[in-house]
Amino acid sequence: MFEHLPKRVYLREVGPRDGLQNEPVFVPTEVKKEFIRRLAATGLPHIEITSFVHPKWIPALADSAEIGKEFAQFGKTHTSALVPNMKGLEGAEQAGMKEVAVFMSASESHNKANVNRSIKESLSQLEELIPTIKSKGVRVVGSVSVVFGCPFEGEIKAEQVAPVVKNLLDFGADYISLGDTIGVGTPTQTKRLLERLLPIVEPKRIGIHLHDTQSTALANAVAALEMGITAFDGSVGGLGGCPYAPGASGNVPTENLVYMFHGMGIETGVDLTKLLEVGVWIQDQLGHPLTSSGLRAYIGRKARAAEKAAQKAAGMATAAAT
Amino acid sequence: MFEHLPKRVYLREVGPRDGLQNEPVFVPTEVKKEFIRRLAATGLPHIEITSFVHPKWIPALADSAEIGKEFAQFGKTHTSALVPNMKGLEGAEQAGMKEVAVFMSASESHNKANVNRSIKESLSQLEELIPTIKSKGVRVVGSVSVVFGCPFEGEIKAEQVAPVVKNLLDFGADYISLGDTIGVGTPTQTKRLLERLLPIVEPKRIGIHLHDTQSTALANAVAALEMGITAFDGSVGGLGGCPYAPGASGNVPTENLVYMFHGMGIETGVDLTKLLEVGVWIQDQLGHPLTSSGLRAYIGRKARAAEKAAQKAAGMATAAAT
Repeated sequence: MFEHLPKRVYLREVGPRDGLQNEPVFVPTEVKKEFIRRLAATGLPHIEITSFVHPKWIPALADSAEIGKEFAQFGKTHTSALVPNMKGLEGAEQAGMKEVAVFMSASESHNKANVNRSIKESLSQLEELIPTIKSKGVRVVGSVSVVFGCPFEGEIKAEQVAPVVKNLLDFGADYISLGDTIGVGTPTQTKRLLERLLPIVEPKRIGIHLHDTQSTALANAVAALEMGITAFDGSVGGLGGCPYAPGASGNVPTENLVYMFHGMGIETGVDLTKLLEVGVWIQDQLGHPLTSSGLRAYIGRKARAAEKAAQKAAGMATAAAT
Repeated sequence: MFEHLPKRVYLREVGPRDGLQNEPVFVPTEVKKEFIRRLAATGLPHIEITSFVHPKWIPALADSAEIGKEFAQFGKTHTSALVPNMKGLEGAEQAGMKEVAVFMSASESHNKANVNRSIKESLSQLEELIPTIKSKGVRVVGSVSVVFGCPFEGEIKAEQVAPVVKNLLDFGADYISLGDTIGVGTPTQTKRLLERLLPIVEPKRIGIHLHDTQSTALANAVAALEMGITAFDGSVGGLGGCPYAPGASGNVPTENLVYMFHGMGIETGVDLTKLLEVGVWIQDQLGHPLTSSGLRAYIGRKARAAEKAAQKAAGMATAAAT
């Protein structure tokens, strides 16, 4: 165990897209922009900034054109955005995006609920969409949702996921993102899925997108790491969730990934304290507490330090007065 | 990875002790008793029921004599209690306890803060206390706190923990419990500590007590499992915390351990749904939300199912009326 850990992992922050798309109140475009800037300043190598989806479906991201235009090229920070279809691709192209993610689910029911298509219909659509994206010189991530379990169908077997992944690769996807959308996976399931996939795709082309519903996300991340995976999605503060799984926790908090990787001697390029401060900041902007245990602990430590400082100042004032 | 997973693990529920000792309001003795009965009914093999500590230090557990008397022998459920000193041992003995846990910290500062003794003083005390307990035919767990990190001293090295463990074993401790009291450990740290300890103690005599402050608890549990450890502490709902680490999460939720182990094909003997219902029940009794992500997700799923049932009933009523 841990004989061949990588020196560095690649973290993809999905808070501005996967996180904010679930906020009940529209987050002002200027706040989103500031959020993305602050995230980039922590050293995060990649930020998923928005989704070029029709505002009827996700009103929270109705400002994708403006966000895309500002951050399609963003210094040394890689950025990407979701595109659900040709119309979305047009938006991403106009914004100048260099990487986009297309998506579908590994289960019929979740695919139907999420994109109103059968798996077969999604595959036909992506067979056309992916090569079109590639032809424009844009990188494509093929994101597959509910790879371990579906809120409607229960456990999803590696055998169901593999053909979807194979198709996306055949259509030309540069990377594959495996999403445990409702956070039900376990480390052995992670191992089984990767054992099934690694014969058809190199580990460096696979990223893992975990949710922390049962607190298994970091255990699954470590299992993936042991299988050679080095790309991980996270969302600062654990922002996000799944509209079809109420009560479920959001994405695995990026700060918890960073904390663990650093503790294991693996570089992320991220300044953990700066990232936690972005968590505090976006929580203030949103006006409700975020679920991340790491963020809660940080806020607790800060409050305690402030209390101690105040006690010390009061003691000094008393001493000066006597 | 995962080539030699055990068929079964042994879960020790510490909610009634480690959980309730941190509650700001005294939990009525009858509620504690009902809590313990309900926990046992889930199939949990072991429950840490109380602490025989002076009520001046932990008023929340001032009813230890009554709790101990009722549950020292409790059908096929193993029970244990904490004893800080000879006085505590008298209480445990009067109650008829068959297993007790003695405790100290791996760091000077935490030991001082927690038991007001230096490590040397604690070791002298335990050199007398452990053999006395053994002479009465009572099993002893030697619990070591802050084995990965201390809120005052930062990281704790395996080299600091090993001599403490060695002493406790030499004094006659039957088992060792390794506590990540503030939840800062990582999987590689877990591996390093166990690599250091396994030459002096068999894995079946070691238990792991994790807190989930940075969401790393289950990842650490899996690392311990891979090293041959099969005994894990948990607290339903994630009850508990550490008074010297405000904002820190409580113990790793037992339901999250059960969820993951079952998902990995490892038996626990616990009925997960019954356990989640105990979490709902104790949350209602305490009157504040517990932190466990697994419990929150369960409550969310229940609410959604109830909503659907209500919609269906309303639909049927409408249909019947038309």
